[in-house]
Amino acid sequence: MGSGMTMLFAENGLQVGVFDVKPQNIDNLAQNLVSGLDRSIHERVHSFKEYTPFLEFLGGKSTPKLFVFSIPHGSPADKVIEDIDEYLTDGDIILDGGNEWYENARRRQKALQPRGVSYLSMGVSGGYQAARRGPSISPSGDKKALDSVLPLLEKFAAKDPKTGLPCVANLGPSSCGHYVKMAHNGIEQGILGVVNEAWELLYKCMHIPLDEIAKTWDKWGSEGELKRNYLVNIGAEICGRHHPNGPPSHVVNEVQDKVVQDADESEGTGFWTVVEAANRHVSAPTIAAAHFFRIASADRAQRMQVVENLGQGLGAARKQQVDDAFRTQFVEDLRLAVYCGCLASFAQGLNLIARASEDEGWGVNLGTCMQIWREGCIIRSEYIADILQPVLEQSGGVTNVLTLPVVGEEVRRTMPALRRVVGLGLEWNAHIPALSASLEYFKYCAGKHLPSQFMEAEMDYFGAHSYDLKSEGPGEVQKGKHHFEWKPA
Amino acid sequence: MGSGMTMLFAENGLQVGVFDVKPQNIDNLAQNLVSGLDRSIHERVHSFKEYTPFLEFLGGKSTPKLFVFSIPHGSPADKVIEDIDEYLTDGDIILDGGNEWYENARRRQKALQPRGVSYLSMGVSGGYQAARRGPSISPSGDKKALDSVLPLLEKFAAKDPKTGLPCVANLGPSSCGHYVKMAHNGIEQGILGVVNEAWELLYKCMHIPLDEIAKTWDKWGSEGELKRNYLVNIGAEICGRHHPNGPPSHVVNEVQDKVVQDADESEGTGFWTVVEAANRHVSAPTIAAAHFFRIASADRAQRMQVVENLGQGLGAARKQQVDDAFRTQFVEDLRLAVYCGCLASFAQGLNLIARASEDEGWGVNLGTCMQIWREGCIIRSEYIADILQPVLEQSGGVTNVLTLPVVGEEVRRTMPALRRVVGLGLEWNAHIPALSASLEYFKYCAGKHLPSQFMEAEMDYFGAHSYDLKSEGPGEVQKGKHHFEWKPA
Repeated sequence: MGSGMTMLFAENGLQVGVFDVKPQNIDNLAQNLVSGLDRSIHERVHSFKEYTPFLEFLGGKSTPKLFVFSIPHGSPADKVIEDIDEYLTDGDIILDGGNEWYENARRRQKALQPRGVSYLSMGVSGGYQAARRGPSISPSGDKKALDSVLPLLEKFAAKDPKTGLPCVANLGPSSCGHYVKMAHNGIEQGILGVVNEAWELLYKCMHIPLDEIAKTWDKWGSEGELKRNYLVNIGAEICGRHHPNGPPSHVVNEVQDKVVQDADESEGTGFWTVVEAANRHVSAPTIAAAHFFRIASADRAQRMQVVENLGQGLGAARKQQVDDAFRTQFVEDLRLAVYCGCLASFAQGLNLIARASEDEGWGVNLGTCMQIWREGCIIRSEYIADILQPVLEQSGGVTNVLTLPVVGEEVRRTMPALRRVVGLGLEWNAHIPALSASLEYFKYCAGKHLPSQFMEAEMDYFGAHSYDLKSEGPGEVQKGKHHFEWKPA
Repeated sequence: MGSGMTMLFAENGLQVGVFDVKPQNIDNLAQNLVSGLDRSIHERVHSFKEYTPFLEFLGGKSTPKLFVFSIPHGSPADKVIEDIDEYLTDGDIILDGGNEWYENARRRQKALQPRGVSYLSMGVSGGYQAARRGPSISPSGDKKALDSVLPLLEKFAAKDPKTGLPCVANLGPSSCGHYVKMAHNGIEQGILGVVNEAWELLYKCMHIPLDEIAKTWDKWGSEGELKRNYLVNIGAEICGRHHPNGPPSHVVNEVQDKVVQDADESEGTGFWTVVEAANRHVSAPTIAAAHFFRIASADRAQRMQVVENLGQGLGAARKQQVDDAFRTQFVEDLRLAVYCGCLASFAQGLNLIARASEDEGWGVNLGTCMQIWREGCIIRSEYIADILQPVLEQSGGVTNVLTLPVVGEEVRRTMPALRRVVGLGLEWNAHIPALSASLEYFKYCAGKHLPSQFMEAEMDYFGAHSYDLKSEGPGEVQKGKHHFEWKPA
């Protein structure tokens, strides 16, 4: 259904027909509309609990129709296409705005294309607030169909407050739109991990009161490297949020420490990014580390068995006694460490898009992705967009963003702070999987001489995998020409 | 083809027909046989460069035949099955001993089963030396067919030197054999990472001469926690190996620092394990961290661009000046840290097998896996097998090995050493992705209170993902019942 988008469209003067397989959802929307102030929105929304009147409202079998899907990934969307199949006609356009696996989207495109039905693969980011106020949109697919809906999408998409430009663009052919959204959610997973670890360091280790963290993060998110970093911005709000009624207490302190959206597959995009990074041979350790942390948190009942077995001391972050000068320095280091972890997450996600785009012939411009992510989405990071977008727009074929001078400059400048934070986190037994993975990532990406010469020798020992010689220069990404018979068979 | 296995079979009195699509491989085998001492082996090997005489030698169309595949994963094996299709008959058994993706193996099983052809999914580990002397074998599939070949496999499999028992067993139905081999290679990837990082700490940071590292590792691998740890054992040999001819130099010092077997897809099993861990929601950060390090090492030419851009200092391990007492203590800590990293790798690989076995209804006993891995394979670790095998054999349904008391005891005992090593590695700017990921893994698995309460609150803020309350106990692995309207849409 997508009640937020429905209201956004109606607010902008469109006549909207809305259908949901669950009648309750339609009733809830009606409730929301009645309680809304603007009666005109109500009048432009036409709700349906059955397909036939809904499809007839849209013009029936003979009229080209515009569908917007907001459906969980996988078979539910297939079921809907099956259900509306007999009403589909030449000229119809389906905008699939769910978090769909890009291969499902591609399959549907291919199946519907011969009938003249354009299925557009459309990532939508920003959560339910953005769906209502203007999301970040990454569409792809048939160019003609996309061109015809782009003016509409530009109207509803979030706008970059700096330039007024909409956060939507034609990303390319096929289902690269859903792929880019998947990578967005992978980057989101990395940043969530980094921010989450920073929160523990401040709250559990430094024992800074939540209201004070709220102020600090408010400052972090209003200037410098973390300016308008969405997850820092809302983190500030969360830290400062007391229960509206009842005795004074922070809402966040009531929340159980588990994230289940991967484990129950209600949110596929995080683990898909890890799968894709592994399948396409792109290094994405920050994203993977954050993911495996989330996964381990999900089954709390089993985790308590492990805690019982391993002992509590092993996994408990320790409270610190520090003076004000130390604390001030640490908080500033942490700010830069969070930024450095965000940079790592962006680098990994963008490198994955670049590789997939090359593999699939999509021609996605990474600068366009940065424009789409400027507002309305969860990974919004104004500073990072400001430094990356111009160079990425100009270097269309970049395959590794770590080769960009501006990225080199930023990593060199902020990695020492990340290193200090990881060192203290280690000392304090804090949970720092994503921060430490980010540090290791930059270290080995910048490694002129890696210990992998030894790993290569081990693999040659037992597998005759063969190797290049140091004297031969970098060599190709393929097996070397040399084998040493370490131990004859 | 599998020349090692061919010779092993012939040596044991079997008449072997051998075929390869590349005639050169057949010629090379002939060369090896002629230069071998035992003439009787030669007489029992019958080489073929074309299918028809090869298949007629095996008995032709009407006689049940036993095939052993040693073919790269994916389409090559499909091509071979297509090529021999008209000769396949009821009662034929195919032992596919390649590193095959388990879903390909399952597909072939299903396709061949109606014709009475039993395709057995058979992991074979140990590299080319073990293929010749006795590998570790993990077969699965049709029980009747497997029972009929098991005596043969038991004869050729590696034997546990302690008990004399063969390192092969019927793992279960379907293609769980290839799955277990895949997880073996994932564990191998984790251990390779850990051992590789230990090597850098000793050689590059502590600047211990290679011949001395060889002696140290020899000792590590002969007693205690790393006893008969294969990758430590061969690491000792590699460190001590000088060029047989020419001026004195260590072979390992000539090897270029890049591992390409993932990036060029010549070895699928490492990244498959990361894909499977992500897909099945099993935390496997040591394996993933080791993998993403390997991947980043592969494209050395691009890495040199990144080095140029980020600056060499960022990624260079630093040489240390330390006294003897410090060095002795560090080397002992490192020994236990390597062990702790191996434990993490085993825990992650075994938990993945347990989850897949439950999902697929395979009923794989993890104790059987430990028996198979006792000799002849790359992850051979006698101490770990000694502590894990008995408890795993008795606790058939275990889904997380971190809940086993013996594992708790070992992690508690050795994790402090791992923590000290990671701390020093950080100080020395060594590359420690797998060691630090192992430490974080144990920390969050043993975390009674994780910072994920904050991550969950952030996800509820923008996505209305909802959460459990702390007061409600651990809760299920599904979305909680509570949503706080942090910011109305």
